[in-house]
Amino acid sequence: VTVEHDAGVAARAWAWLVSCVVAIRVAVAGFARKVWKIGADDPRRAVHGLKVGLALTLVSVVYYTRPVYDGVGGNAMWAVMTVVVVFEYTVGGCMYKGFNRAVATVSAGLIALGVNWVADKSGDKLEPFILSGSLFLLAAAATFSRFIPTVKARFDYGVTIFILTFSLVAVSGYRVDQLLDLAQQRMSTIGIGIVICLAVCVLIWPVWAGQELHLLTVRNMEKLAGAVEACVEDYFAAGSAKPAAAASSKSEGYKCVLNSKASEDSQANLARWEPPHGRFAFRHPYAQYAKVGAAMRHCAYCVESLSSCARAEAQAPEHAKRLLGDVCTRLGARCARVLVEASASVAAMTDPKTVDFAVADMNTAVHELQGDLRALPPVLLALEPAAEMSLMDAMPLFTVASLLIEISARIE
Amino acid sequence: VTVEHDAGVAARAWAWLVSCVVAIRVAVAGFARKVWKIGADDPRRAVHGLKVGLALTLVSVVYYTRPVYDGVGGNAMWAVMTVVVVFEYTVGGCMYKGFNRAVATVSAGLIALGVNWVADKSGDKLEPFILSGSLFLLAAAATFSRFIPTVKARFDYGVTIFILTFSLVAVSGYRVDQLLDLAQQRMSTIGIGIVICLAVCVLIWPVWAGQELHLLTVRNMEKLAGAVEACVEDYFAAGSAKPAAAASSKSEGYKCVLNSKASEDSQANLARWEPPHGRFAFRHPYAQYAKVGAAMRHCAYCVESLSSCARAEAQAPEHAKRLLGDVCTRLGARCARVLVEASASVAAMTDPKTVDFAVADMNTAVHELQGDLRALPPVLLALEPAAEMSLMDAMPLFTVASLLIEISARIE
Repeated sequence: VTVEHDAGVAARAWAWLVSCVVAIRVAVAGFARKVWKIGADDPRRAVHGLKVGLALTLVSVVYYTRPVYDGVGGNAMWAVMTVVVVFEYTVGGCMYKGFNRAVATVSAGLIALGVNWVADKSGDKLEPFILSGSLFLLAAAATFSRFIPTVKARFDYGVTIFILTFSLVAVSGYRVDQLLDLAQQRMSTIGIGIVICLAVCVLIWPVWAGQELHLLTVRNMEKLAGAVEACVEDYFAAGSAKPAAAASSKSEGYKCVLNSKASEDSQANLARWEPPHGRFAFRHPYAQYAKVGAAMRHCAYCVESLSSCARAEAQAPEHAKRLLGDVCTRLGARCARVLVEASASVAAMTDPKTVDFAVADMNTAVHELQGDLRALPPVLLALEPAAEMSLMDAMPLFTVASLLIEISARIE
Repeated sequence: VTVEHDAGVAARAWAWLVSCVVAIRVAVAGFARKVWKIGADDPRRAVHGLKVGLALTLVSVVYYTRPVYDGVGGNAMWAVMTVVVVFEYTVGGCMYKGFNRAVATVSAGLIALGVNWVADKSGDKLEPFILSGSLFLLAAAATFSRFIPTVKARFDYGVTIFILTFSLVAVSGYRVDQLLDLAQQRMSTIGIGIVICLAVCVLIWPVWAGQELHLLTVRNMEKLAGAVEACVEDYFAAGSAKPAAAASSKSEGYKCVLNSKASEDSQANLARWEPPHGRFAFRHPYAQYAKVGAAMRHCAYCVESLSSCARAEAQAPEHAKRLLGDVCTRLGARCARVLVEASASVAAMTDPKTVDFAVADMNTAVHELQGDLRALPPVLLALEPAAEMSLMDAMPLFTVASLLIEISARIE
């Protein structure tokens, strides 16, 4: 019996062990699948990883093969550090950080040299006070300047590097002539780091922030078009049958538009730093994308209300819906067409001529709907379609506004 | 005549110079006023600047007065660098960066030591290949891991420091026993830097991310309440007179709610790193704030539609408005009261008992409005108020949803 009992314990322990291993394997496989999906969704991410590896290897090889190899304890460290910190996903990010790093290092170094010279001249007693005092004041002022919106948007990283360089130089305790040597070496290493970064970033499968912003805008417009159409259809189909899951997933598209403000802003910020590339000329009107984005969010708020009408429990009577259904569906389709045309013209960066026709079409549809609504009262009372109407009425206004901005952006 | 002419030129040049100086002075004064306003709006920003200055001065003084002062070219540099890079506006940000820096430095240092040991053992020929290869692979993998959302949210900075430390140690070209010495020194300096940062950040007028998030949520709720009430009033007042600018500025409050997603997310992320403080216990349910924020944004979308109804050109006939005006205004006021009560209960972190009453009040107001609307059809046809209704109908649903989440958050 004991043997059997022991065997039972052993078997149970074995089973437990096996189940543990299986659980871990499942967890690891799940994680691996998630990671794989992230890479497969956008292979440029994996490429970005490889690019960082390449840039780092390059900079280390440069320092290995240099005739005078003074060890990373010396200045070569700064090249490695520059590569690690400056390398960003988009070219704009890389330019922004590289420019900020270079300018901040030079300006902070010069100011620190000046302060050190003054401290040097004013005697041993005063020296530490001048150095500490200037460090305190400059660090406080620079940190405070980060709360100014313009500085925050364009020079946030530069301010950090400014404080860092100034404090390192001011507190170093070296004499001014030593410092000049040091500064020269450090500048050259940082320069090498920035050049390697930019070369790898721009030459190997570059990711342009401007292009990303462009694609995001186009994609959002298409999603919005799909959502407008799907929502109107959902609303008029809701009575006849349960809305299909497929249609509903399409009508959720506007949610991406609602949440894309932050990424749009940051990309527009970075895109400003990019040199002309492809169809993006110098001074491409990136600020216009932000305006188009804002107009699209306005539309998305309307779509949100529309879809909450479609989901609401209190629905209009069936016959009222049927009367207005045709006109509304047509209007929805035309709104969607305007958006699709607009997104196509944005994508191709052409003057939107076809959009004008689509807008005219949409406006006639709006007038039709208004006419139908005016004709409706004597026939029967429809509460809910009126809600619909007011929203549909607002839609074209916003769309037209967004289009006007669009057109002005293209013409510029 | 020539003299007069010369005098004219001189006078014009002088006038031009004076106008230039005046223009510069005006610009500088404008900028100064803007900067002053940024500081006056939130004095903690100015204090933050002073805190950074203080921390930097402290760390430099520590290294000045140390018996063995080995110059900033050595390891003291790392303490200064740590302070500059780790010091953040909120305590949560400081903890996050300090923790990430410490853990990433230690783990990357250990792995780099292991790799160096292996490279050391495998002979002079293989050594550079092993070092460069491991650098390439690890840097690529670590960079790619930043695209995983969890890593991005919690360990983004840590990954940077990991790559930095690993590449510095792996490429340094030192032998393993030298490296151990170096590592020990560097750890201690970075430790000193982090301790000084945290001490200054926590002890002197600390800014807690959790508290900021809490205040932001409360303030947004109040603004939303004001906007709901003001919009309904605007809508029914629009016919009688032009809406006053004051009322309209109040009704714009919902726009803050729409745009606060990004700052809410980042603060919730940082708040997780904070130790218990004040009324914020350990494991305070910060994730609930994000849910409340999402519910508030849902409300804000409705308010947006409501206010666009109020601004629309096509308005309902005056008599129809008058019929529904009272009930709607009452409902708007009760919606606002629910939000105010909810914000008060969130602010006080108490179980929202009074909110339940307010919700019940609001629901009776909703029923009243629904009853009035049903009674309306025979009397007269009102198109626009119906739009109003559908929105007002949606409002309480969202509000109730937000409240339920709220209540569950408090009870937890």
